[in-house]
Amino acid sequence: MTTVNKDNEVIVNCLPLDDGERREFMMAANGVEQVFVGDPTERNTMTWSVHVPEDVARRATAVIGNVPPSQITRYPHLRWLQTWSAGVDAYLAPGVLDPSVMVTNASGAYGQSVSEHLFAMMWALMKNLPSYRDNQSRNEWHDMGAASSPFGATVLVIGTGDIGSHFATMCHGVGAHTVGVRRNPNKNADGIESMHGFDELDELLPHADVVALIVPSAPDTHHLLDARRLALLKPGAIVLNAGRGDAIDPDALLANLDGLRGAGLDVTEPEPLPTDSPLWSHPRCLITPHVAGGNHLRATVDRIIAIARDNIANYTTGAPLHNQVRR
Amino acid sequence: MTTVNKDNEVIVNCLPLDDGERREFMMAANGVEQVFVGDPTERNTMTWSVHVPEDVARRATAVIGNVPPSQITRYPHLRWLQTWSAGVDAYLAPGVLDPSVMVTNASGAYGQSVSEHLFAMMWALMKNLPSYRDNQSRNEWHDMGAASSPFGATVLVIGTGDIGSHFATMCHGVGAHTVGVRRNPNKNADGIESMHGFDELDELLPHADVVALIVPSAPDTHHLLDARRLALLKPGAIVLNAGRGDAIDPDALLANLDGLRGAGLDVTEPEPLPTDSPLWSHPRCLITPHVAGGNHLRATVDRIIAIARDNIANYTTGAPLHNQVRR
Repeated sequence: MTTVNKDNEVIVNCLPLDDGERREFMMAANGVEQVFVGDPTERNTMTWSVHVPEDVARRATAVIGNVPPSQITRYPHLRWLQTWSAGVDAYLAPGVLDPSVMVTNASGAYGQSVSEHLFAMMWALMKNLPSYRDNQSRNEWHDMGAASSPFGATVLVIGTGDIGSHFATMCHGVGAHTVGVRRNPNKNADGIESMHGFDELDELLPHADVVALIVPSAPDTHHLLDARRLALLKPGAIVLNAGRGDAIDPDALLANLDGLRGAGLDVTEPEPLPTDSPLWSHPRCLITPHVAGGNHLRATVDRIIAIARDNIANYTTGAPLHNQVRR
Repeated sequence: MTTVNKDNEVIVNCLPLDDGERREFMMAANGVEQVFVGDPTERNTMTWSVHVPEDVARRATAVIGNVPPSQITRYPHLRWLQTWSAGVDAYLAPGVLDPSVMVTNASGAYGQSVSEHLFAMMWALMKNLPSYRDNQSRNEWHDMGAASSPFGATVLVIGTGDIGSHFATMCHGVGAHTVGVRRNPNKNADGIESMHGFDELDELLPHADVVALIVPSAPDTHHLLDARRLALLKPGAIVLNAGRGDAIDPDALLANLDGLRGAGLDVTEPEPLPTDSPLWSHPRCLITPHVAGGNHLRATVDRIIAIARDNIANYTTGAPLHNQVRR
């Protein structure tokens, strides 16, 4: 990118920063004007609001924060948008942002949070914790039988980006064999012992004790686990999904759940999961409401802030930005 | 011990062995008579039965299995008892076994199972899974707010034998700082970064994000976590207990639970937890019915069998036995 003319630049920073961090961001901006509109009291809340005064929005050339896509027209001079989300679909949709606007996301900030949530769901299902919680709600002290372990188990990770790689590393650390599936099987990922392409998926499924889905929503990942593939799974296997809900056919999952140890779903199709879905009450299904990501961990927030700060420094010195999804 | 006279020895083996394993145990016994009375169909059940015919019991000099203590008088020639449990309190009680009978247990077989259960409970509480399960029972899609992580957290392990050391190793593997407390702080344990004595417990508690209790029942561990010590904990700390239930004062725990992220209890005082205990319905309390140990993992069963086989080989050749709790 070309060097910016500092006099014409106005960065609107919507992050919920404290005073010390605002000073760090001032330093990072190399003299470019930066307007802080974030509310530091929202730091520990799950979603952050964006309130940008009319006159500030009109002058803004860069925005740090997830401006509602419907309000993008308030920013006629926008040249760069840094989101605090990993997903930016809403901004890339036709007619939302002018194609000249550069978009960077917070990819990498959510790997720990999502992978840990997947890991926690896996352990809970292995140790029958959802069933024990159900018994607890009836004040019932009752052994639910055999548990399982990741030690010596085969964990198949479908989608081996930041999140999948983190998850695989944790599984490997507790004794699991890790197998990965990704578009380009020649590209390694930390934590994955053997990498394969999607063309080998059907041969890998019957050997997996745990199948973890962390794939983006795309035409070829829609119902990736359908009735045919679910039927390939080992009896007693565990299915986990923290990518996009539509990667699993919910009707096919329901039909196959009795043969599995369990399914841990942080994402569903559709979302929210409809109140009348039979998945809610199936004892082998553990459901969390799309909370694996988000700002649920302090470490995630720290990384979002670090990504934004580094990118402001790069933006104001004309260096290439990290996490570009469109330039 | 002295070399055995093989002609006078009869080993009664109550393990649920298959034919191949029985052949291995025959080899291990070096020609000493061994009577197999175990039921292989019980292999995957949580408790194993002991059915020993009268004439076999009368001749038995060694028993592999947890004979009911009340029936010990059926074994007048018993010289060695190998239990498949870690606990042997019932056999060591006065008047049960003649003091000349050697007792060995299955200590070491349960480390993986109990430590993994503790680990699963910790993760569940960190990621709010019990609350999400409660919401699920009402078909409710609802964010429960901030999660926590073992990454960078301080985990205090009280009791650092086989189980505590396994647990600490897993916690350290996912980024936790591990601190141990044991009777002899000069003795290290795998997975523990800094070891302390019980005299330092009060100084350590305020720094712990997770406190895991794996102490045996003993006069000085009774209500080890009492009201005074529970009050020393950080707001948002997690308490786990998979040792003996009476290591925590249940009334004091209840009074302090609102200030904690949660408590994960596999053992309680008393057991089973009474139906009218308010701990059942406290949202921050996760209860499992003393199932962390037992034969819930196949790996536990494999290790019990390996310990017994090695000890039979040693017994019949006059070598010292492993896991002696009394000789």
